Amino acid sequence: MARLFRRMRHKVGLAPGTVEFLGEQKVAEVHMSVLDYGQSEFEEREISEVEGCFPYREPPRTSWLNIDGLHDTEVLARLGEHFQIHPLVLEDIVNVHQRPKLEDYGDYLYVVIKMLHYDEVETELSVEQISLILGPSFVISFQERIGDVFEAVRERLRNGKGRARRMGPDYLAYMLLDAVVDNYFVILERIGEQIESLEERLCNQPTHDLLHQIHSLKREMILLRRGVWPLREVASGLERSESKLVQKPTRVFLRDLYDHTIQVIDAVESYRDMLSGLQDLYLSSISNKMNEVMKTLTIMATLFIPLGFLAGVFGMNFDFMPELHWRWSYPLFWVVIVTLVTGMLLYFRRKGWL
Amino acid sequence: MARLFRRMRHKVGLAPGTVEFLGEQKVAEVHMSVLDYGQSEFEEREISEVEGCFPYREPPRTSWLNIDGLHDTEVLARLGEHFQIHPLVLEDIVNVHQRPKLEDYGDYLYVVIKMLHYDEVETELSVEQISLILGPSFVISFQERIGDVFEAVRERLRNGKGRARRMGPDYLAYMLLDAVVDNYFVILERIGEQIESLEERLCNQPTHDLLHQIHSLKREMILLRRGVWPLREVASGLERSESKLVQKPTRVFLRDLYDHTIQVIDAVESYRDMLSGLQDLYLSSISNKMNEVMKTLTIMATLFIPLGFLAGVFGMNFDFMPELHWRWSYPLFWVVIVTLVTGMLLYFRRKGWL
Amino acid sequence: MARLFRRMRHKVGLAPGTVEFLGEQKVAEVHMSVLDYGQSEFEEREISEVEGCFPYREPPRTSWLNIDGLHDTEVLARLGEHFQIHPLVLEDIVNVHQRPKLEDYGDYLYVVIKMLHYDEVETELSVEQISLILGPSFVISFQERIGDVFEAVRERLRNGKGRARRMGPDYLAYMLLDAVVDNYFVILERIGEQIESLEERLCNQPTHDLLHQIHSLKREMILLRRGVWPLREVASGLERSESKLVQKPTRVFLRDLYDHTIQVIDAVESYRDMLSGLQDLYLSSISNKMNEVMKTLTIMATLFIPLGFLAGVFGMNFDFMPELHWRWSYPLFWVVIVTLVTGMLLYFRRKGWL
Amino acid sequence: MARLFRRMRHKVGLAPGTVEFLGEQKVAEVHMSVLDYGQSEFEEREISEVEGCFPYREPPRTSWLNIDGLHDTEVLARLGEHFQIHPLVLEDIVNVHQRPKLEDYGDYLYVVIKMLHYDEVETELSVEQISLILGPSFVISFQERIGDVFEAVRERLRNGKGRARRMGPDYLAYMLLDAVVDNYFVILERIGEQIESLEERLCNQPTHDLLHQIHSLKREMILLRRGVWPLREVASGLERSESKLVQKPTRVFLRDLYDHTIQVIDAVESYRDMLSGLQDLYLSSISNKMNEVMKTLTIMATLFIPLGFLAGVFGMNFDFMPELHWRWSYPLFWVVIVTLVTGMLLYFRRKGWL
Amino acid sequence: MARLFRRMRHKVGLAPGTVEFLGEQKVAEVHMSVLDYGQSEFEEREISEVEGCFPYREPPRTSWLNIDGLHDTEVLARLGEHFQIHPLVLEDIVNVHQRPKLEDYGDYLYVVIKMLHYDEVETELSVEQISLILGPSFVISFQERIGDVFEAVRERLRNGKGRARRMGPDYLAYMLLDAVVDNYFVILERIGEQIESLEERLCNQPTHDLLHQIHSLKREMILLRRGVWPLREVASGLERSESKLVQKPTRVFLRDLYDHTIQVIDAVESYRDMLSGLQDLYLSSISNKMNEVMKTLTIMATLFIPLGFLAGVFGMNFDFMPELHWRWSYPLFWVVIVTLVTGMLLYFRRKGWL
Repeated sequence: MARLFRRMRHKVGLAPGTVEFLGEQKVAEVHMSVLDYGQSEFEEREISEVEGCFPYREPPRTSWLNIDGLHDTEVLARLGEHFQIHPLVLEDIVNVHQRPKLEDYGDYLYVVIKMLHYDEVETELSVEQISLILGPSFVISFQERIGDVFEAVRERLRNGKGRARRMGPDYLAYMLLDAVVDNYFVILERIGEQIESLEERLCNQPTHDLLHQIHSLKREMILLRRGVWPLREVASGLERSESKLVQKPTRVFLRDLYDHTIQVIDAVESYRDMLSGLQDLYLSSISNKMNEVMKTLTIMATLFIPLGFLAGVFGMNFDFMPELHWRWSYPLFWVVIVTLVTGMLLYFRRKGWL
Repeated sequence: MARLFRRMRHKVGLAPGTVEFLGEQKVAEVHMSVLDYGQSEFEEREISEVEGCFPYREPPRTSWLNIDGLHDTEVLARLGEHFQIHPLVLEDIVNVHQRPKLEDYGDYLYVVIKMLHYDEVETELSVEQISLILGPSFVISFQERIGDVFEAVRERLRNGKGRARRMGPDYLAYMLLDAVVDNYFVILERIGEQIESLEERLCNQPTHDLLHQIHSLKREMILLRRGVWPLREVASGLERSESKLVQKPTRVFLRDLYDHTIQVIDAVESYRDMLSGLQDLYLSSISNKMNEVMKTLTIMATLFIPLGFLAGVFGMNFDFMPELHWRWSYPLFWVVIVTLVTGMLLYFRRKGWL
Repeated sequence: MARLFRRMRHKVGLAPGTVEFLGEQKVAEVHMSVLDYGQSEFEEREISEVEGCFPYREPPRTSWLNIDGLHDTEVLARLGEHFQIHPLVLEDIVNVHQRPKLEDYGDYLYVVIKMLHYDEVETELSVEQISLILGPSFVISFQERIGDVFEAVRERLRNGKGRARRMGPDYLAYMLLDAVVDNYFVILERIGEQIESLEERLCNQPTHDLLHQIHSLKREMILLRRGVWPLREVASGLERSESKLVQKPTRVFLRDLYDHTIQVIDAVESYRDMLSGLQDLYLSSISNKMNEVMKTLTIMATLFIPLGFLAGVFGMNFDFMPELHWRWSYPLFWVVIVTLVTGMLLYFRRKGWL
Repeated sequence: MARLFRRMRHKVGLAPGTVEFLGEQKVAEVHMSVLDYGQSEFEEREISEVEGCFPYREPPRTSWLNIDGLHDTEVLARLGEHFQIHPLVLEDIVNVHQRPKLEDYGDYLYVVIKMLHYDEVETELSVEQISLILGPSFVISFQERIGDVFEAVRERLRNGKGRARRMGPDYLAYMLLDAVVDNYFVILERIGEQIESLEERLCNQPTHDLLHQIHSLKREMILLRRGVWPLREVASGLERSESKLVQKPTRVFLRDLYDHTIQVIDAVESYRDMLSGLQDLYLSSISNKMNEVMKTLTIMATLFIPLGFLAGVFGMNFDFMPELHWRWSYPLFWVVIVTLVTGMLLYFRRKGWL
Repeated sequence: MARLFRRMRHKVGLAPGTVEFLGEQKVAEVHMSVLDYGQSEFEEREISEVEGCFPYREPPRTSWLNIDGLHDTEVLARLGEHFQIHPLVLEDIVNVHQRPKLEDYGDYLYVVIKMLHYDEVETELSVEQISLILGPSFVISFQERIGDVFEAVRERLRNGKGRARRMGPDYLAYMLLDAVVDNYFVILERIGEQIESLEERLCNQPTHDLLHQIHSLKREMILLRRGVWPLREVASGLERSESKLVQKPTRVFLRDLYDHTIQVIDAVESYRDMLSGLQDLYLSSISNKMNEVMKTLTIMATLFIPLGFLAGVFGMNFDFMPELHWRWSYPLFWVVIVTLVTGMLLYFRRKGWL
């Protein structure tokens, strides 16, 4: 959790609107690419200099500029200048600790959203911030590093079938957001499987290890929740936006996006409930086991401590202990022992301890 | 819980509006039927080809088309084309992980709702998604498999008494929704009985097994809640809808439907409270039992360990232990033992341990 | 709790608006009576046939028709027909599992409310549903059985003093609702006394029995809450109603009614908090007692097990144990024992265990 | 808690607007006094007969009538008649179980508020209901008994400095309410000190006694909360009231009053959180102590029970036990014992039990 | 916690608007300074007499008056008089127990906010109240003591680059608030690190000490929450304020400020969740350890108590115990012992206790 605030300290004292990258540099150099398309045209290429992006600002074709890597503030500053992006937006783009949000700057909309990766090696969730600038004929996306969940969107644009190239940049922005939200379902499915497996193991053999797994899943849920709850406002904000950048045919899709975010939130909340339930179950199981252990101890001690006393009595060295000299004392001793044990066992059974 | 997200992964990467079935195929082939009626006419028949459904789109008679089985996307696509249903609606119909919702598409209303089955064999709740399309003179219902809770509605339409055939498709949609919600009461009643029986058994003899039953009921409650809460918005949305598809005489019935969903939600919340209460009761009972066990152990150990020591003392082999040779040592020993035991028993009684 | 859903199953499959009694028949036959009054006139009589009720529908005098027993649907149907009551209202009247609510049907208002009885014999809360129809010059009340909390209202009407007979049917309805809500205070007072007595006993001597009493009070609270929360909406709905059936002079009294329901809700919530607090206290007391038991055990075992070992050592039969033959061994043995015991007791005292 | 409902039963069955005192009579006879002032005049005197109050109803001077003692309903009735107070208001004044509220009756505003006393002797919070009637040129305050927190207000009126006498009855009402709310801070401060001292003692030596203190503070918090939460609505209702009785210059003071009530609520909520935290801390401390006790027991038992067995073995009387006759058996026995003990102690240390 | 209400008692009884310092005096004497600037001019100096502040009230240059130390009410009174500040505002400035808030007095806005310090020596959070008066051409800031988080703001004004000197007093106020909120991130980062380190230590070795650290962090969270939640209203109030003192270009920055406060609140809530999770983890760890301790005890006692009994039996002194005289009794005894121990160990292993 604390990692969300690491390195943030450098920021304190900077003037508002200062563009300084606040995060770990995850990529060696900034990587820029563009997809430029109309209904019947399509162009896709890498861009090496930031000036190469400038022509794509103009209509009529729709352009999707994608920037991977946020540490080179020079690039961002020049991009911001040409596309007339407010300094505070640039500041938010490089400060990767934003909350998901939607802001309407008149000429463009600014959207922040969190993309989740499930790191297979560290078996940990990692979060990457995606910023989108939706302009009249372009979408600019900013990512922390190379590698994203947008490959399917690119494919749809390339083959040019369906609705993808017929519609404008608002639909492109929708597709990108939808890809991110769809990816949440993959994460949720994986977590759901982990919860199910935890539950099964809890029912069979509760070990201390499970508790730590429940705890770390709960932590991930807190992380997930912070990314997912504000999304609802983003999606409903887009749907109801009065900006003319969002056109009517796209709104029905945005309503669908909204439904999906609600589904994600629902699932996250259910998982939280499930995890609390599992923790309760774990604690009860521990109590139960302790109870069982205590019963065993009590039965053994209750059976043998009195017998031990009895044996001790007849090991005493008093001169005058007549029963020591009787013929049938020793067999009688065993009869008494067996009777006592039987009685106590019956008593325990009646108590329900056996 | 995780089952809600299984198979969802295939969806990621598909274009929005792609109609691909996301669920387990529960029926061998798609099964279509129609009930077509006016105030004095009634026709009921099976339809084998999707084209057979097309004529029922037209007024003046009201038609109820029922489709069982969602895996054949070809059928849905052609139906959607003829009835001019938005691709996103078709996508939602086949994606059976929707949240209950109501959407107004102008020419028709789209309603998603969850039908619950109590599987007697697996003693588990199962969920089936029902989608309704309410058009000007028709209702289309989509189910995952054959078998539903609508038989009573069909019967009412067949015998033609009462309000059923006099009113339009909005009343038909109401009757279907009402049948689903009525069925919730059956489920709730059954769960209520389970809770009551659990409670009785808890008071008599709390076993570890009960804990798992409480846990699994709590899980069912999470499932139920997710299906039931959004229903409230659906019902109130229909009642207050400004669509001219919902006519005034039907609204009073929709208010009734709304009342019923509130009752269901109330019951679900009460059950959740009850189950939390039962879990607390279980844990307290375990604590109580542990306490009782500990008391038994403590009493036995406290009684006999000192006596054992005493017996041990007189079993020592020191040459000079004068009391070993006295005449009344041994009887005195027993007097001391009895006195000690009596004293301790009195002490325990005063402490309230006996 | 489950009892709220018992017998509900029969309903499933019935057409909406079907009037079938859903409850236990609590009275042998339907019992009807009327109070008919103006400012200076008053008439009170029993009615044997349902037709006897019909003339009281007309102004100018205000009539209060009271029906005890809901199982005879024939009576209700004819009453409903004459007074032009909507079938759904009749259905709700006989379905005694309604949530408290207020519905405006234009010509009349329909109010459902729950009357509580504290059954002295079973020491259990029981719930009875009261339905009121408030028309332009009449109020009809429906009860499940004979016996209610309205005797004071009747008395006020009979003696004709005060405001009661000067005002119209809306004031009559208010008086009836007020009587029901006033009765809640009696119930709350009784529960409050039970909680106080529980608390006192908990502080003195926590027994397992108390836990079950706390649990059953919590259950009653769940029941009470379900009846009381929706009442708030009923009261505020009446106060702010735009219906001309509720006249201005009555509204100030309805505001008072609203205040009372808020007070009841407040008390119910406080009691819930109190009961949670008591349960926590109980559990802590159990923990404390367990701790005390464990301490006793530990002290006894820690004192005597080492001593027992020492005695055992000198009971060994080795040929060569020189200390067995010394003159002062045995007194020295006792000196060692006493020293050990004293030391350990001091240690326990420093630990705060004694 | 229950005391809030004691004696309430008498009320049930009374006609609405019946003025019957519902509370304990806390004062021998009704005590009336008046402060009558203008900007340059001031009069203060006791009133023995209720008729003495009547002239103070008239402008232009502002009058503050204070009534201590509510049991004499005759006095109240005549006062109510002359000042034209609605019977329901009179009923609420004498029914001292009201929730704090503000009601606008056109000619006057009616405010109910709770004054808290910390009873030094019983070390318990007690609650007194204060009712205020704010008219065009007068304020009437009703208290259950003599003794209040208004002395500073009287002093301010007497010496005539500052704003107090320049402004009208609305400012007077504000001053009274402000005095009551200010007094809450005294109570909160005292409770805060108790919580702090509890916390310190919990950290040093948790005893059973502390649990009961936490419990009783939690109870007081429930009481306090019920009095404080509705106050917020009273304060904001006064500030935003459209009544011409509240003049513009006073509103800025009422906003200040509102801020204070929010501060009080904040503190109450924080204290609740603190108390929950303390209870958790207490329970954890108990668990910790139990753990420590158990460890001591386990260490002692684990050390000495095996040794006891060993000693027992060599105390057996078998004829053929060769080691009994060896020369070095006994010293060897001690070597074994010391080795075993050392080994186990090392094991315990590694486990972290020592 | 209680410290928030200490010394507050003196206030009770004072007339509203009385300016009396309510806090600890943290500075020897009041310290005043001014920064006066236009786009191209800049002046910075200390002021020794309060009259020295008066000229800075006038336009056109923007002036920032900073007052450190609030105990000299004379200074405040004269300042208030010249700048026409409402007495209630002066009262709030010196009463350092305010809740963060924004008040619009027409000619000026009044903002209260809490500045946090992390005291390195006492390792404790301390809170300082900052009051801002935003007038048409000036900002006055009041602090309890010398030393603040505004150095970076001063530096920006001094070097005159960027937006700082081009914009008016509203932007200055924004910069001050932003500096305070930015400082929260430093605090949060530090707490985040503490939580992370606590978590690590909990997983390795849970000690009693950790519980107290969790508890004290929870306390700090309660404190932090009280300061942070109302901030949201302050920030959104400023952004949406209709006052002409806040100009349009500044509003976009205020929205940014609002975003930051939401981020802070989010983090505080996440930390609370984390701390609850840690506490649960701690308690479960304690339960687990207790379980382990109990298992060790039970295994040892169950193994050796029966063996001890057996050894005791053959230490009895009955005359007629034939087995004592058999040749192979003693070796057989050991065979039995080893068999028993092996059997029990196998049993424990099957139970999962080893």
